[in-house]
Amino acid sequence: MALIVQKYGGSSAGDAGRIKNIARRAIATKEKGNRVVVVISAMGDTTDELVSLAHQITSQPDEREMDFLLSTGEIVSSTLLAMAVKALGHKAISLSGSQAGIQTDNTHSAARIRAIDPRRITRELDKDNVVVVAGFQGVTEDLDITTLGRGGSDTTAVALAVSLGADMCHIYTDVDGVYTADPRLVPEARKLKEIDYEEMVELATYGFKVMHPRAVEIGQIYSMPIYVASSFNDNAGTVIRGGIPMEVRNKVRGIAHDSNVAKITVLGAADRPGIASAIFEPLAKANVSVDTIVQNASVDGITDLTFTVARDDVPKALKVVEPIAESIAAKGCVVDSDLGKVSIVGTGMQNTPGYAARMFTALSDAGINIELITTSEIRITCIVNRGKVVDAVRALHKAFELDQE
Amino acid sequence: MALIVQKYGGSSAGDAGRIKNIARRAIATKEKGNRVVVVISAMGDTTDELVSLAHQITSQPDEREMDFLLSTGEIVSSTLLAMAVKALGHKAISLSGSQAGIQTDNTHSAARIRAIDPRRITRELDKDNVVVVAGFQGVTEDLDITTLGRGGSDTTAVALAVSLGADMCHIYTDVDGVYTADPRLVPEARKLKEIDYEEMVELATYGFKVMHPRAVEIGQIYSMPIYVASSFNDNAGTVIRGGIPMEVRNKVRGIAHDSNVAKITVLGAADRPGIASAIFEPLAKANVSVDTIVQNASVDGITDLTFTVARDDVPKALKVVEPIAESIAAKGCVVDSDLGKVSIVGTGMQNTPGYAARMFTALSDAGINIELITTSEIRITCIVNRGKVVDAVRALHKAFELDQE
Repeated sequence: MALIVQKYGGSSAGDAGRIKNIARRAIATKEKGNRVVVVISAMGDTTDELVSLAHQITSQPDEREMDFLLSTGEIVSSTLLAMAVKALGHKAISLSGSQAGIQTDNTHSAARIRAIDPRRITRELDKDNVVVVAGFQGVTEDLDITTLGRGGSDTTAVALAVSLGADMCHIYTDVDGVYTADPRLVPEARKLKEIDYEEMVELATYGFKVMHPRAVEIGQIYSMPIYVASSFNDNAGTVIRGGIPMEVRNKVRGIAHDSNVAKITVLGAADRPGIASAIFEPLAKANVSVDTIVQNASVDGITDLTFTVARDDVPKALKVVEPIAESIAAKGCVVDSDLGKVSIVGTGMQNTPGYAARMFTALSDAGINIELITTSEIRITCIVNRGKVVDAVRALHKAFELDQE
Repeated sequence: MALIVQKYGGSSAGDAGRIKNIARRAIATKEKGNRVVVVISAMGDTTDELVSLAHQITSQPDEREMDFLLSTGEIVSSTLLAMAVKALGHKAISLSGSQAGIQTDNTHSAARIRAIDPRRITRELDKDNVVVVAGFQGVTEDLDITTLGRGGSDTTAVALAVSLGADMCHIYTDVDGVYTADPRLVPEARKLKEIDYEEMVELATYGFKVMHPRAVEIGQIYSMPIYVASSFNDNAGTVIRGGIPMEVRNKVRGIAHDSNVAKITVLGAADRPGIASAIFEPLAKANVSVDTIVQNASVDGITDLTFTVARDDVPKALKVVEPIAESIAAKGCVVDSDLGKVSIVGTGMQNTPGYAARMFTALSDAGINIELITTSEIRITCIVNRGKVVDAVRALHKAFELDQE
């Protein structure tokens, strides 16, 4: 008897009808002879509505209280799903993250799972229940409620699957798998039957919305296979797993993009040790995620320091960086908020030369200027003008022949 | 340093503005040198909205899941209140019923408090926090969430006050105290400065909406003084306490009424032992609260059995009673849904004759027919036609000179 952990996101749980649909899918999985744990997100816009309620009280809500507030969204959807399964004649029980044994550190709004005590879930599975677990949340040692931040419900699902020794983790969402590029932009994009963890982490980090990289990484560490598919149909999805043989013919697996990029340049900073950490440590503390960092060659001991952040984080980033720029006698900060990035990803690229050149040529041929470049072992990312992102994705998809099997 | 437990109902917490108002009131109480615990209900219509969501899933939601679902309403208002207190520069923390140590039996939707472990609350008070506790909820031994049913938040507040050894329990609502009758019906009604527990239990049971009798009873058992006042102004309210000297001049304290009464008569039942329990035990199990019961004199071993229930409970009651009536060969059931009741209440009535006669005369003089009569040691209730309830309240208020000090 296999054990399956399924996760359904907020759009899959948008209203009562969709929650009933999830119930039917969970039951179908159970009737095939599986034990089933379902992790569910808050319904549709619930989380946004709760945030807006908090902002009606104060512009800076306390984080501990905010987490406790937001955790109710997943309790609501969990209890409704358990009711729906029971109404269809099957046994079910809903559990909060706390009841499900999901123990976290006390970093409110971005807690990390420390350990999972799966005994309650196992006990409920033994009673033949479909066990519904509220995603996105956990509990500290002091029994305070935390939320896991971005990708929280995906993380709950994969971590639970690992802790329960599940056979597979299913991530159901509103797209039916992992494509070579966003099919809304590239009609020729192909759905991948399977993809390696590492590639998925890079694609997810650089713009594939299908799943959060943090959850994929947990799957990778513990070799938990993850199946990504749509909750709205029965089309075959994509399996994320390890040990996929490298392809010979085409070593790029997918083109990721992100149209939400801003570049901040600190002009004329003194080029001495400690400047970078003076800027990037406070940014990290302020929870601003910095992506690319470029430091220009120093001229007369003076340098320009450029980095990119998500466009929404610009005000927060400037609040941190501007006083620092002043304190280190820099000439000021310049912002370009109108950028995007395109990335090619594939494990086959490792130690194989020529990919970067092929990428730059394709972009150049399409008349696209490259602002900044950043790479990992299996990824090359170019920062380009936002208006050119779609063209760039199409050009690269073609150049790397991703439309062909 | 006194310890005060304050409770605010759903209308007092109707929106963000009102929650901020509660925060200011709690802080004002704290600034007078008190330690403050606030029990809060769900915002306005939240509970109804959650119930309706559950009914979109299934017409008969599972009770365990329903309790867990409904408990989120009070978590939302609690966290918002704690944020509001903190935004005003004071320390605050919100706790669920479970975190606050409120342990109940596992009668879902109508759980009884078994014990309270106040250690967490005490710890948070010691840290100088205003401690906000989600009303209406508790937790079973198995760590499942329960709700306390009607009057739940009042019950949470008084029980917490008792368990913490508080100096007083404040119940804030949308009326500013206990009146001799509903002031919307009787403009001359006087607000009482104080009232005895026993009288308040009877008045609350027979129609005064200001507070739930269950909570008053807990106050009575443990001699916890309860102060009832409005959350919308600073008018002096009413203290509910024990040991109030009996008044000599006027021994009726208040006129309660309830326009939501139905009478069910089981016609021609065999008058033998066991018939009453055959009817009333299943009704209790179906959670139908039966008030007055009258059995007519038996003629030839055949009797009519009449009882009253809340009008809304008629369908549920008939579903239970009709099959039983058939099984005991009764002639059938008759329903009159158009009734109300008026009650006079006062401890001074004990062992003093003449009150019943004075009541019946006053009603008769006002042309009001009495359908049924029921009494306790400190109360006389008459069931009358619903259309006559307001006239009856006014006539009795005048007859017992309640407009005079």
